[in-house]
Amino acid sequence: MTSVQTLDEYYMKEAIKEAKKAEELDEVPIGAVIVMNGEIVARAHNLREREQNAVAHAELIAIDQACRETGTWRLEESTLYVTLEPCPMCAGAIILSRVKRVVYGAADPKGGCAGTLMNLLEDDRFNHQSEVTSSVLERECGQLLSDFFRKIRERKKLAKKMQTDGLTKNDKE
Amino acid sequence: MTSVQTLDEYYMKEAIKEAKKAEELDEVPIGAVIVMNGEIVARAHNLREREQNAVAHAELIAIDQACRETGTWRLEESTLYVTLEPCPMCAGAIILSRVKRVVYGAADPKGGCAGTLMNLLEDDRFNHQSEVTSSVLERECGQLLSDFFRKIRERKKLAKKMQTDGLTKNDKE
Repeated sequence: MTSVQTLDEYYMKEAIKEAKKAEELDEVPIGAVIVMNGEIVARAHNLREREQNAVAHAELIAIDQACRETGTWRLEESTLYVTLEPCPMCAGAIILSRVKRVVYGAADPKGGCAGTLMNLLEDDRFNHQSEVTSSVLERECGQLLSDFFRKIRERKKLAKKMQTDGLTKNDKE
Repeated sequence: MTSVQTLDEYYMKEAIKEAKKAEELDEVPIGAVIVMNGEIVARAHNLREREQNAVAHAELIAIDQACRETGTWRLEESTLYVTLEPCPMCAGAIILSRVKRVVYGAADPKGGCAGTLMNLLEDDRFNHQSEVTSSVLERECGQLLSDFFRKIRERKKLAKKMQTDGLTKNDKE
């Protein structure tokens, strides 16, 4: 028998694969998949910088893809897996597409709208609520992000050092 | 001299033209335009039913279009005009794309997130806030929506009546 926890971890690993594709493109590593009847109908990763598009978040691309794939804007029987807690835009897209359940990995203290800053997904003033499961493979999802931002900081530090060294060298010449 | 109010009404009329395009397609009449340096860089209308896509809201399509048009996800110097108060998804997309100012027509008591149910656009926990101006050509924007929903109700009533009449006629035969 396959437990819900095992299935959640299985699909979260698929979302993590997507996050790693983002990382390879120097994008913040966030990935998402949408599952309907045990089948992955959409998979996507953050593409904001590459596409220079503010709406190119993993979840939004995945929802857009799932609507196209299934031919309907109602994703009522679906579960969305995402490595990072959804932002307001993605939480809104989840409500609008009536995703049944959202499973996320790491919490987002800066913009998380599925329990951290607020919980748009379970706010009964909207005409749909999604069930939320948090902290699935949290450590692995969070690690991807912290490693990414550490590398960015190191790269910036190195660039600054090279610039300063260059300036000093030029000053001496 | 052109006052801000006159300009706001001018661009809102452009958003209303977009809303009317949606209406012609039997879509809920909502329209949006994005203005940068006095120029309309994107115009869009609600296409949810036609595209069968939950994310096909006027504002989201307009933001996507403006990013493609300008080649950047930062729409910092822009004003977004929309006939109806933004939902959580569109308010989120506005924050993410750093739209400077949002002008809307009618308030949305069921899902408005720019002052009615909540105010995501001016929530200082997010890393960007947009200035909000509400109620510009409010009556006209609201009228479009109430006329649309009235027609839908009448159409449904008529369809039901025709079905009942048909059934009664068949019963008699």
